[in-house]
Amino acid sequence: MLNYVHGGDIQTYIDRHGFAPLDLSANINPFGIPDAVRAAMHRAVDNCTQYPDPFCRAARQAIGAREGVNPDFLYCGNGAADVLDRLAAVLKPRKVLLTAPTFAEYERTLSGAEIRVHNLRETDGFALTERILDEISPDLDAVYLCNPNNPTGRTAQPELLREIVRKCTENGVKLVVDECFNDFLTDAERHTRKDLLESNPGLIILCAYTKMYAVPGVRFGWCMTADAALIEKLYHAGQPWNVSVIAQACAAAAANEPDWATETAKRIAEERRFLSDGLAACGLTVFPGEANFLLFRSNDTGLHEKLAEHGIMIRNCDNYRGLSAGYYRVAVKTREASKCLLNAIKLIIENG
Amino acid sequence: MLNYVHGGDIQTYIDRHGFAPLDLSANINPFGIPDAVRAAMHRAVDNCTQYPDPFCRAARQAIGAREGVNPDFLYCGNGAADVLDRLAAVLKPRKVLLTAPTFAEYERTLSGAEIRVHNLRETDGFALTERILDEISPDLDAVYLCNPNNPTGRTAQPELLREIVRKCTENGVKLVVDECFNDFLTDAERHTRKDLLESNPGLIILCAYTKMYAVPGVRFGWCMTADAALIEKLYHAGQPWNVSVIAQACAAAAANEPDWATETAKRIAEERRFLSDGLAACGLTVFPGEANFLLFRSNDTGLHEKLAEHGIMIRNCDNYRGLSAGYYRVAVKTREASKCLLNAIKLIIENG
Repeated sequence: MLNYVHGGDIQTYIDRHGFAPLDLSANINPFGIPDAVRAAMHRAVDNCTQYPDPFCRAARQAIGAREGVNPDFLYCGNGAADVLDRLAAVLKPRKVLLTAPTFAEYERTLSGAEIRVHNLRETDGFALTERILDEISPDLDAVYLCNPNNPTGRTAQPELLREIVRKCTENGVKLVVDECFNDFLTDAERHTRKDLLESNPGLIILCAYTKMYAVPGVRFGWCMTADAALIEKLYHAGQPWNVSVIAQACAAAAANEPDWATETAKRIAEERRFLSDGLAACGLTVFPGEANFLLFRSNDTGLHEKLAEHGIMIRNCDNYRGLSAGYYRVAVKTREASKCLLNAIKLIIENG
Repeated sequence: MLNYVHGGDIQTYIDRHGFAPLDLSANINPFGIPDAVRAAMHRAVDNCTQYPDPFCRAARQAIGAREGVNPDFLYCGNGAADVLDRLAAVLKPRKVLLTAPTFAEYERTLSGAEIRVHNLRETDGFALTERILDEISPDLDAVYLCNPNNPTGRTAQPELLREIVRKCTENGVKLVVDECFNDFLTDAERHTRKDLLESNPGLIILCAYTKMYAVPGVRFGWCMTADAALIEKLYHAGQPWNVSVIAQACAAAAANEPDWATETAKRIAEERRFLSDGLAACGLTVFPGEANFLLFRSNDTGLHEKLAEHGIMIRNCDNYRGLSAGYYRVAVKTREASKCLLNAIKLIIENG
């Protein structure tokens, strides 16, 4: 079968094991889809007899109002991954700075570019530090940052990120900041840099309601930028009907449910502490993530396979640039899910 | 606002006129979504908490069984338009033969290629003739054909199409045959060339249930080819989660409803005769289309705007290469819709 490098591939698990696993390999809100969002999706089924609005007008209005951003600054795609594909096609950067580790899709979409890798250090807990500022130079076309970063869950200090934005603007370097997990932070507003969009047209912020509203199967993501010419190019970088009718309705409904995000972030913070403490008590090295997932290191490089035998899927991170065998990412879900994982890990350790 | 060149842009109409039009600009089955398909979509809403299967396994199995084609020959995308985008990215053809007129998306996706245009002749009723065989030469990388053709509704004679396949294979030219409207033909089996896939790995057939199952808002299309290496490249030509959970469920359900297609094709054939006769009686030149739409010519180059004032959207074809102002495409829908259109046209003619 073909090579698939991400979490969440439940079907392959089912084909191998004959049953559905406890999936901790994809970082989806365990509290599910809010009722109002689910209802909007059901209502939208009957509207599928029409082509989707190519300009996602209703969804951009709702999101713009929620985020306090001009709807004309928004481009919506078939998931944030579609927006990344289009950004790469439009920016056509020759030289790009990426951190390692980070979300693998950036590099996939940038297959034509020279990649300069900024290695995050395990001794820094994989946090972004001021070292990155020295790497931002005019020979770069773009910098991609994930904040909080996937798979580490670390955020950049707000002052450092402001400095990065400033330096990219000064050097004429496009800056793509992926904030897809921002709303899982208990201090989300402190970390988003949408306040800098108007003053920095080279800044592009990537977002999705996918994880918070538990709708990865729907496919909706967007980016925000004050660069109107770039937005127009994104529309022309692929088919005009990329965002389904149901996805547009889902996003508009999710935008109207801000409390779902603040409540979830609070509950996830509690569950993250529980899971982090539990993993550490098992002797694993847990990195201090702030999102709805945790990166940890184990001496057992076959842990993911053993957990699969216990009915649990976690994300093996050995294919992340900058990581290797023994690094794993787990989603923070309910207390029950965390207990199930911790019990299985204890059993595996006891059985040597 | 941005430039949008296709039919079905209801939202722009609503923004201008304040109400929803009778949309005859998009060629969607007027009998709607079959109950079983709608039910499958509703059931799939709850499954959207998971990422879509990147390999669309269940949908490919169901479609393969329905179409009598090996599921491994299928690549599914976010609508046929996504498959076209990926085909262009993977085939990277330098020189492509297209007919004029034809579906505008081919040329958009082939923006890097030199386009050789084969002009269909109005004196032939825009039918494909043997003339095209002389244009297939080894310097071409690909030929794109739409059968039945959009916007003319004309089919290639089966023997001619077999000859085109043979000549493309002989000359090492990839042949993309878009059969997205094939299932509206009353003799669909006679016109599909899926029987030639195995013996011609350079043949790629494009399909969708979009029109027949009235789900353009869902986004699902696929291509079929015996070229396994090409299929693998299509998977890697963009994000892995391009086809939503609901779209996959919708397609699998539609594959299990073949009678919907045969019944619809019969009813549409009757309605097409009624509409064609009616348009001709209004003094318009109607071309002998065989699908669920008709191309006609009027001396009134503002007919579409006048019909918009009557609450009816038709497809102005002045932006098709090979056509000009005064050419229009209308969908064949219900008897009531056709009467409504014909009455409006009569009124417009009377008011000169």
